[in-house]
Amino acid sequence: MRAHASKLQPGSTFLGSQVARIIESKNPKYSPGQYVVGEFGWRTHTVSTGERLPNGFPGAWIIPDFPKDLPLSLALGILGMPGNTAYFGLLEICQPKPGETLIVTGAAGAVGSVVGQIGKIKGCHVIGVAGSEEKGKWLVDELGFDHFINYKTDDITKKIKEYAPNGIDCYFDNVGGEITSMILCHMNHFGRIAVCGGISGYNEKDIPKVTMIQYPVVINELKMEGFIVHRWLDRWFEGIEQNMKWIQEGKLKYRETVTEGFENMFKAFTDMLRGGNTGKAIVKL
Amino acid sequence: MRAHASKLQPGSTFLGSQVARIIESKNPKYSPGQYVVGEFGWRTHTVSTGERLPNGFPGAWIIPDFPKDLPLSLALGILGMPGNTAYFGLLEICQPKPGETLIVTGAAGAVGSVVGQIGKIKGCHVIGVAGSEEKGKWLVDELGFDHFINYKTDDITKKIKEYAPNGIDCYFDNVGGEITSMILCHMNHFGRIAVCGGISGYNEKDIPKVTMIQYPVVINELKMEGFIVHRWLDRWFEGIEQNMKWIQEGKLKYRETVTEGFENMFKAFTDMLRGGNTGKAIVKL
Repeated sequence: MRAHASKLQPGSTFLGSQVARIIESKNPKYSPGQYVVGEFGWRTHTVSTGERLPNGFPGAWIIPDFPKDLPLSLALGILGMPGNTAYFGLLEICQPKPGETLIVTGAAGAVGSVVGQIGKIKGCHVIGVAGSEEKGKWLVDELGFDHFINYKTDDITKKIKEYAPNGIDCYFDNVGGEITSMILCHMNHFGRIAVCGGISGYNEKDIPKVTMIQYPVVINELKMEGFIVHRWLDRWFEGIEQNMKWIQEGKLKYRETVTEGFENMFKAFTDMLRGGNTGKAIVKL
Repeated sequence: MRAHASKLQPGSTFLGSQVARIIESKNPKYSPGQYVVGEFGWRTHTVSTGERLPNGFPGAWIIPDFPKDLPLSLALGILGMPGNTAYFGLLEICQPKPGETLIVTGAAGAVGSVVGQIGKIKGCHVIGVAGSEEKGKWLVDELGFDHFINYKTDDITKKIKEYAPNGIDCYFDNVGGEITSMILCHMNHFGRIAVCGGISGYNEKDIPKVTMIQYPVVINELKMEGFIVHRWLDRWFEGIEQNMKWIQEGKLKYRETVTEGFENMFKAFTDMLRGGNTGKAIVKL
């Protein structure tokens, strides 16, 4: 993310989560052969103490036992940080109730696709916003979203009125930007907004200017809260276990966009920022 | 406010609170000679049932007994809706703690001037933003604000860094607009923003575009909540009584900008929108 990545100095390792097998260990908490997940960055081999990083992120988690049919790479997606981002962000900040309407932007991404499905599990009417008809088809036909809005081709305001005739109660915001200003104008009294990211501006040189949001925020007494999932580190495995249970019950589905080879990492990353991925973007070494 | 006023149809009575003396009453709850405050609009005489208005606002409150040295017009300001807006909005949404830094925009207005003083009562370091040196002098010299920023002439970012070297914890936002985007970039982790209004855009034909706020909201996990003071109708007299007590203890000061004569109402209103008032803008009939 630009938000974190823009602070990097030239020459430092680029950010990224990784599943890694332990080759050698001098720490009794970790054994060779075990798999861990950590914020190791773009590299093939890592020396780690396993201790927390200076930014408070965990150094390395030992991946819990996954059912045999689930790939370890899910520890980077639906059974890791993105899945937990969806789980805690939606449930703790949006607090969706049965019968309410939920809208999620970046809906076909690693986080958004899980947000919408958990919304359905909780009895919400769910609208996903993404940038291609193919993604939309996946959201509605396979993941069970009620509606899809293509932000690149649809008249967004018209579609919101059509798909959310009773207004929107919960908004899980992955993108920020003008679309957020539009969505806020269709929210109900005491609506809740979980602000997870602002990807719409990550590739811009300057932070974009968008229609100011204070009118709908005041008139409808909206509550908007930004969050970073590490706030719930002490409940980390609660999210993973619940998402795993829902996968096994057939209630949560996932997709990964896998790129092969370290040399294709940069392309995979920039494709992701341009919206080329569906579900979690993975690079396999 | 544009927010409410823009919904008015031509020919309807313009919005405004009023202190009125009861001339005649067929309702046993109200007696001739009593003073009430209500959303009667711009008119000299009103027929009211005293019942709640369709928008949920109270029809008419009987003004509680004020100490003899306090004018009844305070029921329109510090001992009425604006005072309660400051009291509940700051305490319930910003939840200021001793030692924290509070910034308030529209600081010399009927709401902002009370917000800053309650912030001082609660032990905060308080910065007020307003549009003239005269207002700034009043805030700092008479009301006890720690610092003043003149948004028309100061380098706002530089002043924030100087006056809030440890960052801002609470922001009471009366104006919205670009200054809000700037302030959010200087807020601390888990900062709270009470969104009370967006006056910076009320005179614009289109809602202004401002720098998007998702980056600071996410990175610092900020919580932003819009509110209308009528949310706390059931605690209405708690706010009035506490503010009255603080006035009597010398901890809360007020100023009114009084215009004489119904025929000068429009000018008083537009002067207020342009920032001509200090404290509550009152028209005396």
